[in-house]
Amino acid sequence: MDFLKPRYTPMSRRRRIYEGKAKVLYEGPEPGTLIQHFKDDATAFNAKKHQVIDGKGVLNNRISEFIFQKLNDIGVPTHFIRRMNMREQLIREVEIIPLEVVVRNVAAGSLSTRLGIEEGTQLPRSIIEFYYKNDQLNDPLVSEEHVTAFGWATPQEIDDIIALAIRVNDFLSGLFLGVGIRLVDFKMECGRLWENDMMRIVVADEISPDCCRLWDMKSGDKMDKDRFRKDMGGLIEAYTEVARRLGILGENERPQGSGPILVKG
Amino acid sequence: MDFLKPRYTPMSRRRRIYEGKAKVLYEGPEPGTLIQHFKDDATAFNAKKHQVIDGKGVLNNRISEFIFQKLNDIGVPTHFIRRMNMREQLIREVEIIPLEVVVRNVAAGSLSTRLGIEEGTQLPRSIIEFYYKNDQLNDPLVSEEHVTAFGWATPQEIDDIIALAIRVNDFLSGLFLGVGIRLVDFKMECGRLWENDMMRIVVADEISPDCCRLWDMKSGDKMDKDRFRKDMGGLIEAYTEVARRLGILGENERPQGSGPILVKG
Repeated sequence: MDFLKPRYTPMSRRRRIYEGKAKVLYEGPEPGTLIQHFKDDATAFNAKKHQVIDGKGVLNNRISEFIFQKLNDIGVPTHFIRRMNMREQLIREVEIIPLEVVVRNVAAGSLSTRLGIEEGTQLPRSIIEFYYKNDQLNDPLVSEEHVTAFGWATPQEIDDIIALAIRVNDFLSGLFLGVGIRLVDFKMECGRLWENDMMRIVVADEISPDCCRLWDMKSGDKMDKDRFRKDMGGLIEAYTEVARRLGILGENERPQGSGPILVKG
Repeated sequence: MDFLKPRYTPMSRRRRIYEGKAKVLYEGPEPGTLIQHFKDDATAFNAKKHQVIDGKGVLNNRISEFIFQKLNDIGVPTHFIRRMNMREQLIREVEIIPLEVVVRNVAAGSLSTRLGIEEGTQLPRSIIEFYYKNDQLNDPLVSEEHVTAFGWATPQEIDDIIALAIRVNDFLSGLFLGVGIRLVDFKMECGRLWENDMMRIVVADEISPDCCRLWDMKSGDKMDKDRFRKDMGGLIEAYTEVARRLGILGENERPQGSGPILVKG
């Protein structure tokens, strides 16, 4: 009977769990795992602006792999297991906490606008913000009161999230400083990882130039998604330069659109 | 020499310290005191909407006096000393903390809009919010992180403010419940009161139907400034009814524009 035959190519026979703006999650090879696929789609202003940028997914997969692997190495728990191919990585399945956790070191973007602080002003100390992940509401800023009152996370989970955010900020600030880049701010997400009856909070999603503000320390040039938001062009070149400085791409490598990147080792 | 003669009537010879949208602060009779004068001006949407409503200042002076006096009586410290006349009260001079402290029991207004919760929904618990008092920035919502990072208040002061806000909410919820009114939310402000070398946080500004949402428990009618915001009319009648239920106005009294109210006792 015809309808029992496989109707899809092997790659797409995998069950799609979730499709976001820049990534797709597929069922993983083992229970408790997922495959995180990086698309080339760039969106901003809650997807009001959208463009496909050849090679972005490949670069973000590599940069996020690099950062998550190093975080695992220093004992910051993440959902990351290993990269599988140019666009995909194997991750642990977690229950995503519906918050965007933003850590800011320098005033920029919505903080500058909302609080009237000139972009580029060093903040008196790092500031951690929570935004409620809800596209229909434009991801509104919320305080811990909202988070706990509506049950998005418990006070203990908030403490764990803040502790993780501080560690990630410390690590990333050092990492980028070492390669001549100022970490202005970044967004991360957290998830609940269940292991038997134990639950712990881990860093999830991705950390890439899509969710950081990265300014070259010498020129001040933006090396992040603001190039797309502000129609500055040169996004792939900037992301490639970030990857190159982090030692991810070899000397003569560059991403080739959606095709494979030549990788040493 | 003519310019040495007093050029003003005695009342306005007092030094004006500050003029806000609905109140004026004058120098008080003794050091460390001020006179708080209630105007009839009603503003909303950051003063984009403005109207003079005869008698509002008189009512708010009386209602705020009543509430602050009772708060003092139950040991919640406030800036209030005593009412002086129909539009003025004597208060202690405090250093105002630049935060609007909003306590919400039921979803309404900006909480409903921002978080997509239907107006009138009982909240899972009371929620305390901070807004940075800055007209140019439209009083943006801020979290404790912003408050402490920018030095608007210390963590200890935030704890004191929250403790006061909870006590005020408990008291007002009970008070209004007793007269058939649902306390949906209210805004309060706090100040630093210096006594010799000691500083403590006290409730300041005013608490009146201008800064509360008050719904009649039977009819659901709004008895607060939303009548002005939403062009519903009947503001003075509603405020008068609040005052009457609180036992502030005698049976046959009603405010007479900017003139004196006849008060029993």
